[in-house]
Amino acid sequence: MTAVDFGAFVNELADVSGRTINPFFRSTLIAENKSSHGDFDPVTEADRAAESVMRSMIRRTFPAHGIEGEEFDDERPDAEYVWVLDPIDGTRAFISGLPLWGTLIGLKHHGHPAYGLMHQPFIGERFFGDGGESGYRRGDEQRVIRTRRCAELASATLASTSPRLFEGGALDAFDRVERACQLTRFGTDCYAYCLLAAGHIDLVVEAGLKACDIVPLVPIIEGAGGVITTWDGGPVTGGGAVVAAGDPRVHEQALELLARGAV
Amino acid sequence: MTAVDFGAFVNELADVSGRTINPFFRSTLIAENKSSHGDFDPVTEADRAAESVMRSMIRRTFPAHGIEGEEFDDERPDAEYVWVLDPIDGTRAFISGLPLWGTLIGLKHHGHPAYGLMHQPFIGERFFGDGGESGYRRGDEQRVIRTRRCAELASATLASTSPRLFEGGALDAFDRVERACQLTRFGTDCYAYCLLAAGHIDLVVEAGLKACDIVPLVPIIEGAGGVITTWDGGPVTGGGAVVAAGDPRVHEQALELLARGAV
Repeated sequence: MTAVDFGAFVNELADVSGRTINPFFRSTLIAENKSSHGDFDPVTEADRAAESVMRSMIRRTFPAHGIEGEEFDDERPDAEYVWVLDPIDGTRAFISGLPLWGTLIGLKHHGHPAYGLMHQPFIGERFFGDGGESGYRRGDEQRVIRTRRCAELASATLASTSPRLFEGGALDAFDRVERACQLTRFGTDCYAYCLLAAGHIDLVVEAGLKACDIVPLVPIIEGAGGVITTWDGGPVTGGGAVVAAGDPRVHEQALELLARGAV
Repeated sequence: MTAVDFGAFVNELADVSGRTINPFFRSTLIAENKSSHGDFDPVTEADRAAESVMRSMIRRTFPAHGIEGEEFDDERPDAEYVWVLDPIDGTRAFISGLPLWGTLIGLKHHGHPAYGLMHQPFIGERFFGDGGESGYRRGDEQRVIRTRRCAELASATLASTSPRLFEGGALDAFDRVERACQLTRFGTDCYAYCLLAAGHIDLVVEAGLKACDIVPLVPIIEGAGGVITTWDGGPVTGGGAVVAAGDPRVHEQALELLARGAV
């Protein structure tokens, strides 16, 4: 890297993107535009504006780095360091006024997720990690976060954005996992992975994720002691069907139940 | 009533209950106690402590008023004014670390919901209404809230705490409504009704609610221009299966689809 203070730079990315996005959240603009999207994968002005400003800051500070984002074309995807940006993960939560969306900022080194930060600028929370340690910050409160121990699915809290993520064999597989767990919460997007890292949720099972939805979350989960793979146990660097657990035992049990269904 | 400043008193109830509950939210105590509840309708220390303190304040200030709450026996349920308290609506969200739970404080007059307030003390938000007008406050920001217009289910955003609230004919009925809507979000508890009042969500459909889950929300919804009834169009004062809409046209269309299924 360079002489730039990396932590300060990432926090500046989060500050600027948060200041860009927050005015749109719960705005009448968002509320009134809701019907204009035919197939409803809403791409808001906020999303594009925040990604643009983050890309500019990265280009200026780290001109050799690559950038992958949700809204624009990849830049230098083969660079040693590649940033992965998702300005509004959880656009459906966002347009519904629910504060569980987040801005995801990740950095890959030689293709491996090396640093990640999730910023929820309406609440003012940051979850971050580098694969070795993870932390949480809100205002003056800052602390190290760790996943919690959980020996088995029967005592696990499961989270997933929606049961409608799954179809066919994947739905059967998800249902098997849900039935085995103690408690399920839906509607969680990136927020669930961060609460898993912080020891409040034990398992997240999702499908159909894009790389930028999940790569920035990997170092937060792994730095807190958690495990995250695809449903067949591989790396999640390409997105797809994902299973994250705070305790490796729960991860293994979930993988076993999921393996009986094709994705 | 008395010479007491009613608005100030209700805000004091919210302040005190919030200060009581917040230290428990995301505490290791909650995380570690999660497995001790057999059938998992977790009643936390926070819930009981907050309800106790609110009951004391009400008894002291309005000794003739009745009180109904989730955690303790009813007091004077036939009084002219009866308070309805649910310190932590959304206990499952609460124990999962998700900030969509809320403290519900309602007041009935001759059995009719006359005032309601929802406080989310972690985020610091209050939604409130008296059936004639509704408002929102967070820190220095305070504003009147209104539901938004929505002509038909096909452009409606639907929210519900979980598809697992419904079984049998009620599940079929909910599925019909969900298929007719543009977008569905789960995991919302009391928060969805407040976002409906504020014009971000068009429809909430739930079942199996207790009276204290819903009575405090009625004046917020109605004060913002919304409609809330049971699935058969009656008053929700007793809880049960509930449908709330920001626009009466959406309410009518939802009732029609729901009526084809028994609850």
